[in-house]
Formats: sequence, structure tokens, C-alpha cells
Amino acid sequence: MKKLKIITSLCISALLLSACGNLGNGGTTPSVGSNKSTKGYQTTGENNSNDYQGVIQDGHYKTSRSRGMGLIQNADNLLNLKSFESGLTTISKEQFSTKQYVFQEGQILSRGTINNWLNRKSKKNPEGLNPSDNGKKGENERNPRYIQQIEEQDYMKQTNGKLQLAGMTIGIGMNKKDYYQKEKYGATFETEISKETRVAEGKKAAQKVLQRVRSKVGNNIPIVIAMFEQSPKDSLVGGSFYAYTVSKSGTDIGTWNETNIKSYVFPATEDNAVPNDNDETSFENFQKQVRNFFPNISNVTGQGQYKDKELQGMSVTITTQFYSQTEITSFTQFVAQAAKSYLPGGIPLDIRINGSNGETQAFVSTNGSKGSGYYTHVFSSY
Amino acid sequence: MKKLKIITSLCISALLLSACGNLGNGGTTPSVGSNKSTKGYQTTGENNSNDYQGVIQDGHYKTSRSRGMGLIQNADNLLNLKSFESGLTTISKEQFSTKQYVFQEGQILSRGTINNWLNRKSKKNPEGLNPSDNGKKGENERNPRYIQQIEEQDYMKQTNGKLQLAGMTIGIGMNKKDYYQKEKYGATFETEISKETRVAEGKKAAQKVLQRVRSKVGNNIPIVIAMFEQSPKDSLVGGSFYAYTVSKSGTDIGTWNETNIKSYVFPATEDNAVPNDNDETSFENFQKQVRNFFPNISNVTGQGQYKDKELQGMSVTITTQFYSQTEITSFTQFVAQAAKSYLPGGIPLDIRINGSNGETQAFVSTNGSKGSGYYTHVFSSY
Repeated sequence: MKKLKIITSLCISALLLSACGNLGNGGTTPSVGSNKSTKGYQTTGENNSNDYQGVIQDGHYKTSRSRGMGLIQNADNLLNLKSFESGLTTISKEQFSTKQYVFQEGQILSRGTINNWLNRKSKKNPEGLNPSDNGKKGENERNPRYIQQIEEQDYMKQTNGKLQLAGMTIGIGMNKKDYYQKEKYGATFETEISKETRVAEGKKAAQKVLQRVRSKVGNNIPIVIAMFEQSPKDSLVGGSFYAYTVSKSGTDIGTWNETNIKSYVFPATEDNAVPNDNDETSFENFQKQVRNFFPNISNVTGQGQYKDKELQGMSVTITTQFYSQTEITSFTQFVAQAAKSYLPGGIPLDIRINGSNGETQAFVSTNGSKGSGYYTHVFSSY
Repeated sequence: MKKLKIITSLCISALLLSACGNLGNGGTTPSVGSNKSTKGYQTTGENNSNDYQGVIQDGHYKTSRSRGMGLIQNADNLLNLKSFESGLTTISKEQFSTKQYVFQEGQILSRGTINNWLNRKSKKNPEGLNPSDNGKKGENERNPRYIQQIEEQDYMKQTNGKLQLAGMTIGIGMNKKDYYQKEKYGATFETEISKETRVAEGKKAAQKVLQRVRSKVGNNIPIVIAMFEQSPKDSLVGGSFYAYTVSKSGTDIGTWNETNIKSYVFPATEDNAVPNDNDETSFENFQKQVRNFFPNISNVTGQGQYKDKELQGMSVTITTQFYSQTEITSFTQFVAQAAKSYLPGGIPLDIRINGSNGETQAFVSTNGSKGSGYYTHVFSSY
């Protein structure tokens, strides 16, 4: 079987030849390109074939040309960054098989380019995708910034012993609320952007971005463009992708597909009901069991992702004060049993168990596939 | 097969009968006692048969009668608390099979009792196990406190439908250094305690503790007494158990067994060499690979536990600034590959991958048994 893995470089060290033997046998087998011609780069290997391998060049990870922009673009709510990038990878997997493509952090769009695109259009910045400042300060009179973030992901294939760009995904994060100050260091105001405007402005921006990217990478590779709705800054979940399109070639934007994916907080509130009441009941039953396990209350919160009315995955955080290591072990067992009994089954589920200082002490997880069971882990310390 | 699990109580809810069916099939099967007579208590269930089930009474975990003492006793170095309790459970497993015994947090010794025992002997506190204050302030003139912590673990068996105490483990934590102030709120001084003194004082205390516990629980159950050396407060690893004994019955203390277990920090320093140079080389190679994966440095530290010169387990923490979710995924894959290639194999291994804010973002783990592979997990967020 052909391999691109990090093994190749590791095996150069004669000392480690025996260890490398084991490596080759462990885990699933990647099938990207040919093993003969891996000079210059390696990949991160993979933990399972559902994840992309990433690119290592000369022993270092090939970081994005716009590295760090994500943190800046999402400074108001970092949950958006996680949702944005996980979601972008999920959409990419539908177009670019993890078995055939290697993931590379965006190498075409530099930090400067993305920065210019995200800024307002002006004489100095003709490339700005956000509308020019009309000088007004009123919440509904000013021109809001519609576009909050842009990120590029590259999908590579091996041709003639070299990794070549074979696909690209571009995520565009659209504001639901645009935050601004009327004066420097002043109070923060917000301009609400209607769904119609957001979608329409997003389509316009996507067309421009496609044209500009095509001028850099040519007309032949497929380019996925995915539209993300940013969460407001006080949200306890990140935003979600509402649409994507695949441009097969040239500047034809393709057909927009709606995803109907959205994240919700558990427990639900009146203002923030989840699409399926049964899930809320399940969560509340789980919460009730776990909350009063110790004499001190355990705090249980969750995030769920829905596609239409169907729960796709859930992430739960439990925080409690532990008084001993044995309490952590017992609690973890109990949480796993309670999750099996109460939480919705057949979906990926992550439960973090944190101590009162916020450090993760243990966790419970399932990928939701049949017969995969619940994995529990208590972090060790010597 | 007979079961004591939480299932029993969960199944009372008719709604959940189907879920309970699955529960019964999932995981390994416990074989503690009879299912017929589980009134009044349940157990936490178990994630695998190598862990004890804990006791739940009326829906709440049966916490220790001295709950909270561990945090106070180990205030100077909380790593001691983890090492102490994990080690105590490990020693107990040799005497009390996880398949036959249920774990219960100590119910015999109250907080007040343990507090009195740990204090100095005085007219007011005749039960104090630490020597009376001789009034002197000099580091080598004063009477140091030899005993820092005491913890009880109960091991239960089911008899006539009731859980009954069938074994007990008592850990006694002995100071290597006793910290003290010469005046209130003054500077901290320390009295060093030699190994000989520590061992001898420990044996004396163990004999007294055994007698006192026997007067409470009778002569018939086996009582394990395990002696722990506390780590100094600036140590980056917890202390370790240096000896234990099993009193089969009565006040016969039994024969002391030395464990030769000790924890070490990686990377080693001149003052703090690990028992096996190869392990240090392995760790440094791993560290070198991981450290420079990103343009920013990743900090890699470890703890290892040795029995004589043989590594028993390792816990590694990697801290780095991530700039994106995709970086976390790629890094986790890489760390798993590097761990397989460089770190010692065949032992339990835990690698935490923390972001710069200290939050655990992902982890890699193996239990070290043949064919068990390396488990990797990136925490999800929606």
C-alpha cells in the first residue's frame, strides 16, 4: 500500500527502524499518492481515515499564509472560530475525499490580502469587500460590515512526486450583527443585518472572491465556497454554515446548496428552544442525574448541532469540585452510564469533565456509530 | 449474569426500558453480588473491569466521611493528592479484586478523627500521632511533624443483600520535609526528615492506626496499610508509596513489602536524573520533534513512574498556541505518530494537548497493552 506518512522521515533514523515497523502496522492505512516520491514534504499521518492528513515541510507544519487572522476575525466570540473551521472541513470532506486528498493550510491568500478584502472599500483599499463608510453613526443609517472572516483551505494531490493544489475551499463568515463604536474607546453599538441582506451580500462577495481566487489559481480546480453565519458575541455556541456551492471551473459560481445546520445551547431557554423537544427532555434528565451526584452541585451545559430538526452531534461540559481522585473515577463511570441511558444515541457525543479550576480531569465520548461503545478516560498524573 | 449496576435504578423509568436493554449489552459485565437485592444502593457501573465500581446511595455518591481533608492535607502540593489516591487504589487492587469488591469512600474515620490524629500530641489531643511541640524553633531542634495525611478506602462485598465492609486500605503520607513558620505569617522554614527516621516513624504510626481502626471495625477483615512519601512543595511530580503491609486479622501488622515505586520529571536535569537513560533519550527525541512543529515553540513536559529501573507509565503535557482548529487536528495526528515512534512502548501513556489558555484541546493515549493502539481525540465544539 502506498504511503505518504511521517514514517518516511522518521525511518531515516536507523535507531528507529524497529519502531517504524510497528508504526506501519498500527492504525488504518492511508492511500495517498506514492511512497517513492515524498521528498521535501511529509504528512502528519492520520488517526483514522475520516481525517485529512496535513502537510509537513522540512520537519515543520506548513502553516497558513494568513495564520493568526482567525483569532483576530473572531475576537468577539472564539467559538465562531472552532465552528467555522470544523464546519469548513466537514463540507470539504463531501467534495474532497480524505483518502485521496491531503489537507494544507491556505497558501494562496496572504494575511495582507485577506485583511484588505475584509476592510471597507475605499480609495486606498479598492479591494475591500465591505461597503465604504457613509459617515453615518446611526445603527440603521450606517453601512454595516457584512463580511467578518474569510479562510482558505487547500486540498492537495500528489502528481509526479509533488503535492499539487487539486481543490480549494473558501469559507466566508457573514455578520448577523455588526458591532461598532461611535467614538474611539466608546460604548459598543450594533447594527442588525436581516437574513435577506446577509444572504444577498454573501452571494455578491462570493462571486468576487471566486473571480479573484481564480486569477491566482487558474480555472481548472474545483473551488468550494461556503457561507457561515457568525454567532453574536454573547452566544454560547458558534455560528454555522448556511449554504455552499462548488465552482467546478472558471468563474461559474455553481448552484447554492442550503445546509440547514445550526447550533443550539442546552439546556434550552424560552428564547432559545431547540428544534426537537425530545432532545431537550433527554438532556434535562441527564442533567438531573448528574447534577446531584455529589453533595455539591455539578454544573452541566451542552451544545448541539442540528440539521433541520435532527440532532447531528452534542458536546457537553460538566464542571464540579472534586475532593479526591477516586471521586473523579467514580463520577466518570457514572456519567458514562447516565449518557448511555439518557442522552440521544447514534450521534457523536463528547463529554468533558472539568474540575473547579477548569482543568479537564476526565472525559466520555462516543462517535455514535453502531457498536462503537462509550470511551471513558481519566487523565493520569504521577 | 448478576449485576449491581446503576441500570437497576435507571430501569425504573419505563420510558427508558429500551435504552436499558442496550446498557446491559454494552461494555464488560460486572459480577458483583446478586441483582435481586440492590435496594438502598447502586454502583457507578464501570467503564472496564479493571476499575472498581463506586457506591451510590439514594441517587447520590457516598462521599467520604473525611471528604475535603485530602485538599487540606496536600495544600502544599496537590500533585501529592492525585499520586496518593491513584497509588492507594493500585495497591488495593492487588488485595481486593475489582470483580469481587465494590469501592466505597472511607466511612469509618471522620474528618474530626483524622484531624486529631494528624495534629501534634498534646494534653488536649492525646490521639495526635505527630510528636508534641518541644517549643524549639530551630530547623534541627524542633520536633517535625512526620505524618502529613491519612486516608481510608473501604472495599465492600454483598452479603445477604447488603453491602458489607470486607476489606480496608489505609494510606499514610509521611513528610520528607516538614514546613513551618517561626512566627505567624512569617517566612516558611523546613525541617528535613531522614529516610531512616521517616520509615521508623511511619511504622510506629501504622501500628497505632491499625490498633485504633481494629477497635472500630473488628478483627476479621484484611486491612492494607500503605506508606507514602510526600513530595516537597516545589516538586513537579507527586510522591509515591514506598511500602505496604497486609494485616490479615487482629493487630498483627503483617510483613512490610517495599514497592520501589518513584515518580520522575521529564526532561531530566542533572539533579534529577531518571533511572533509565534510554527513556530520557526517547523523551528528548520526542520533545525535539514536537517542539518545532509550529513556528512558535511547543512546550513539552512529562512525568514518569518507575518501579526500580523500569518505567511503569508516563504522562505528558504539551502546551502550545494554536491559531486554528485545523492546526489542532494536524498536531494531534502528528503527536500520535511521534509518540508511537519515539516514546517508550508497552506502558500506559497519556498525552494532554493544551492551548495557551491551559484548556485541553485534544489528547493521545494508550494503555500500553499489545494491539491496543493509540487513541486520539480532539474535543469538539459547535
